[in-house]
Amino acid sequence: MDLTEDELIAAIGRVLSGAGPEVLVGPGDDAAVVRGGSGELVLTTDAMVEGVHFLPDRTTPRDLGYKAIAVNVSDIAAMAGSPRFALCALTLTDAIDASWVIELAGGMRECCDEFAVSLVGGNLSRGEELAIVVTVTGEVGPGRAVRRNGARPGDRVVVTGSLGGSAAGLRVSSQRSWSDDERDALRRLMRPVPRVGEASILSAHGATAMMDVSDGLAIDLSRLCRASGVGARVELAHVPVHPASTVHEALGGGEDYELLATLPSSDAVARASKDVQERLGVSLSDIGAIIEGVSAESTAESAAESAGGLVAVDAEGTERPLAIEGWDHFR
Amino acid sequence: MDLTEDELIAAIGRVLSGAGPEVLVGPGDDAAVVRGGSGELVLTTDAMVEGVHFLPDRTTPRDLGYKAIAVNVSDIAAMAGSPRFALCALTLTDAIDASWVIELAGGMRECCDEFAVSLVGGNLSRGEELAIVVTVTGEVGPGRAVRRNGARPGDRVVVTGSLGGSAAGLRVSSQRSWSDDERDALRRLMRPVPRVGEASILSAHGATAMMDVSDGLAIDLSRLCRASGVGARVELAHVPVHPASTVHEALGGGEDYELLATLPSSDAVARASKDVQERLGVSLSDIGAIIEGVSAESTAESAAESAGGLVAVDAEGTERPLAIEGWDHFR
Repeated sequence: MDLTEDELIAAIGRVLSGAGPEVLVGPGDDAAVVRGGSGELVLTTDAMVEGVHFLPDRTTPRDLGYKAIAVNVSDIAAMAGSPRFALCALTLTDAIDASWVIELAGGMRECCDEFAVSLVGGNLSRGEELAIVVTVTGEVGPGRAVRRNGARPGDRVVVTGSLGGSAAGLRVSSQRSWSDDERDALRRLMRPVPRVGEASILSAHGATAMMDVSDGLAIDLSRLCRASGVGARVELAHVPVHPASTVHEALGGGEDYELLATLPSSDAVARASKDVQERLGVSLSDIGAIIEGVSAESTAESAAESAGGLVAVDAEGTERPLAIEGWDHFR
Repeated sequence: MDLTEDELIAAIGRVLSGAGPEVLVGPGDDAAVVRGGSGELVLTTDAMVEGVHFLPDRTTPRDLGYKAIAVNVSDIAAMAGSPRFALCALTLTDAIDASWVIELAGGMRECCDEFAVSLVGGNLSRGEELAIVVTVTGEVGPGRAVRRNGARPGDRVVVTGSLGGSAAGLRVSSQRSWSDDERDALRRLMRPVPRVGEASILSAHGATAMMDVSDGLAIDLSRLCRASGVGARVELAHVPVHPASTVHEALGGGEDYELLATLPSSDAVARASKDVQERLGVSLSDIGAIIEGVSAESTAESAAESAGGLVAVDAEGTERPLAIEGWDHFR
């Protein structure tokens, strides 16, 4: 590193947005102090580790910074919360210079500005492996958080936007030229857009359960079903596949950061869909229904073991178990 | 790893303490939801990285888990806040098995229980390097946070407990047998005790500035002085040196997690000292005075450049500049 720790912290501080009136103590003290909100506090943390979540030579530090904030904002959105404050713990390797870190901070600032988040503190360490761990806090009205465990048989299953784009982006990232769809897929991979407004609309239309699709539709839907003690019947033809993606990528590829939610009726889906489209220009797809399933108590921890509760229906109407594929860090 | 990610998360969940009534959504959803407090929100994050902050074969996972929480609780305490909730992002290597992670979680629980903190969520990743990043939130009454920037000429400088123990512990850790003092130093290294109650007492007695000593007394005091635009005159003979430690370790060794604070008068020191001793059995040492210094505006970012504002006085009364030594991740 070409700067001391204190110098680097000061340099990062200059890139960050001026703190709003709700930030009482920003970076530079032992801890940040911010005004508490009136609602409930929503808390999430997510790591991006070199070689696992990104390859330093396949992304820019600016995109990486943006994404590190975005994936956390997505988790706050998935609870129907409003993101407010961020902290970042950076582990830097000897290969990293100060300008790289400043660019990373610039990308973080971009995403923070877009979603009205203040980056109020952090931590710097040296290590053998580059890692960016972001924590975001948010707020939600009392009792208004939308969890994973509220889906009931008869509910409709919806997803925002399209799936598989991020997986397709990763697949084409080593190419030397790209079609327009592939470029869009690359953007999905590099700069996923958290669905904050969409989550708020889904919540207002009575979403019974909600989560973001970070590990893949099949595994994430299996988690939602397990938490709710239900099963699901997914119509494969209705899964919104990104134009550069395969159906396999749409079901099993992670990092799409779309919302997966359940709504109590087709009417609710129609109203929510209209709202999301008109207000945010984003599509909402009805991909199937919640059905009776194994109860939460009787299931084992392994997602695979509750696969029986998930059914895929193809365009011809043939049913079969939905294969639970998706990201598992340890398999 | 001998378990899947979902299995490991479930296993960790069983080790964690039952969530109190203030935890509305605990681990397992996209984000945690907790009851907001009435005061201001205090936020901090800190990383422990293999090879930098610990050597896996020189510590137990239980101690490591305890310390990962403790160092963050210390930062909340240093603002005079009460710690409340914790999140943990773990990066695990292939060398780690599930029982190690369960032990780590057990150590986290121990520290959380001791300081009434609820561990409400986290994240698991795989990587080449073991890393534990903890975020802790706390609460402080409106306007009651004690920052680093309030020290004024004439204030007394105090530290809790003793310094250098952690550095001494590291030095003797490869020995095969230890004296009682060395064992205590090892405990200081492995299981630092955050000074939460002490911080609250110092705040009640009018502390004008406060921080925890994480990188070494000299560098941390220089940071406090720089933030306050003052200098300090440290009487070396009054620095409380851990019995297993050298003066050099007490001034330059990090990870003591004692509190460094300034109080407005010797009377305030006497009263605070009595309280801390009687209520918590911990000593408070008056190590010198705040003096006029270079102003915050005119200093460069480098701590070394403001060393002129820090003076050390030895037992014979000889003054010289206090050498700014301490932990810098990038030098």
